[in-house]
Amino acid sequence: MRTIRAVLQYDGTEFHGFQVQPGLPTVQGAVEAKLRRVLQEPVRIVGAGRTDAGVHATGQVISFTTGARIPTEKLVVALNSLPPFTVILRKAEEAEEGFHARFGALSRSYQYALLRGTPSPFLRRYAAWTPEVRRVDRMEAALKSLIGRHDFSSFCAAGSEVNHHVRTVSSARWVERGRLLLFRITADGFLQQMVRTIVGTLLEVERGKREPEEVVAILAGRDRRLAGTTAPAHGLCLTRVTYGDEGSQGLHTGS
Amino acid sequence: MRTIRAVLQYDGTEFHGFQVQPGLPTVQGAVEAKLRRVLQEPVRIVGAGRTDAGVHATGQVISFTTGARIPTEKLVVALNSLPPFTVILRKAEEAEEGFHARFGALSRSYQYALLRGTPSPFLRRYAAWTPEVRRVDRMEAALKSLIGRHDFSSFCAAGSEVNHHVRTVSSARWVERGRLLLFRITADGFLQQMVRTIVGTLLEVERGKREPEEVVAILAGRDRRLAGTTAPAHGLCLTRVTYGDEGSQGLHTGS
Repeated sequence: MRTIRAVLQYDGTEFHGFQVQPGLPTVQGAVEAKLRRVLQEPVRIVGAGRTDAGVHATGQVISFTTGARIPTEKLVVALNSLPPFTVILRKAEEAEEGFHARFGALSRSYQYALLRGTPSPFLRRYAAWTPEVRRVDRMEAALKSLIGRHDFSSFCAAGSEVNHHVRTVSSARWVERGRLLLFRITADGFLQQMVRTIVGTLLEVERGKREPEEVVAILAGRDRRLAGTTAPAHGLCLTRVTYGDEGSQGLHTGS
Repeated sequence: MRTIRAVLQYDGTEFHGFQVQPGLPTVQGAVEAKLRRVLQEPVRIVGAGRTDAGVHATGQVISFTTGARIPTEKLVVALNSLPPFTVILRKAEEAEEGFHARFGALSRSYQYALLRGTPSPFLRRYAAWTPEVRRVDRMEAALKSLIGRHDFSSFCAAGSEVNHHVRTVSSARWVERGRLLLFRITADGFLQQMVRTIVGTLLEVERGKREPEEVVAILAGRDRRLAGTTAPAHGLCLTRVTYGDEGSQGLHTGS
């Protein structure tokens, strides 16, 4: 059996998240259906990040095993000729036996996009429209307390079944690109809705509803009710996953 | 009565074109419904270009008259707070009495976008996917014969009710932006499906199905059956309309 590692790009708008759900369109379901047609065998894929409904990806990484002999370049072309075109393969390559896109990942990076000023018909699916956001300095100040190793229970969706809530945020910052304000964050892993809850909380700090210093107490309280609202899914995008071999493999992607 | 001139931006994917059609979502219908709510009176708008179903705009210009006294800046904000967000107002300003967005326009510019290589989930609504297009030089050669004043009957949709088919193309060129190949064309006016038929014909020249020199005979024949297929609507975007007063008014837009 061969182990294949591939990079996916998808528009999450019309998917009910990454993970297979019976009777609903999901990223995993769509990709597995394409693979079954091309490889002529049932295939189960593993994704590095189990993105929620409506969340996009430019750099999701998946792994799967197959007995089929098709070269990876042909696999990419064949898969991308099949609908739905809301999910496509950026690239695919042979991986070491045992490579696992989820357990092997060292870091994940997400981007959350805010659009200021007038709304845009072309960005409405990819950026949350927040006409008045100006005080980026307040959000930056609040953000400092989130960088590093913390228990992020307060930023995890209520009802999530994960037991271990400690994650290490290695970098997080706001980047201004004209009317777009982009939040970029990298961690070893993320809890459910963690990025969206961080963004929602930072936006409350921006509006003056909270002070930047409150973030310390929110973290310490380990209670989802302490943090702010969850920002909408459509502003979020999984941009990159690393495995410690990027120099050799170059599997990171841009948009 | 005041005369207002405004710039519209819209994602044409879910509209049945610009012009009002009973029972169907159209750009004109959506904008008139928003205006009626904000101005509290029925309003009829005129568009510079009557874009077809699926065609987008970043710089459509409209005009209308109203007895309402709302300042134009407030009008923009109020309209953009109402759904659908697939069409928004970029700006609005007072115009001279008698200003007519369609009859007063001196030029229209369109862009047709082709995406080469792998398909993109994010551009699938805004660019036609043409994986293999390489011979831009052949399309450039064919294009030369189209620039200037010609009878474009061969590039006009069959069944179009326009009587006069002479138009002046002042500029037309291909621009490469990475995997995107953009066709930009400006004329005093366009016939129905004219840009899409030009692009479809140029793509047949690229593939070697036709020679660049054939365009002269296609024009001379004044028969739609001589030209190539019509490129799909979703690659097309109305980008700019001019009225000869751009220096003073600055109503042109980017994306």
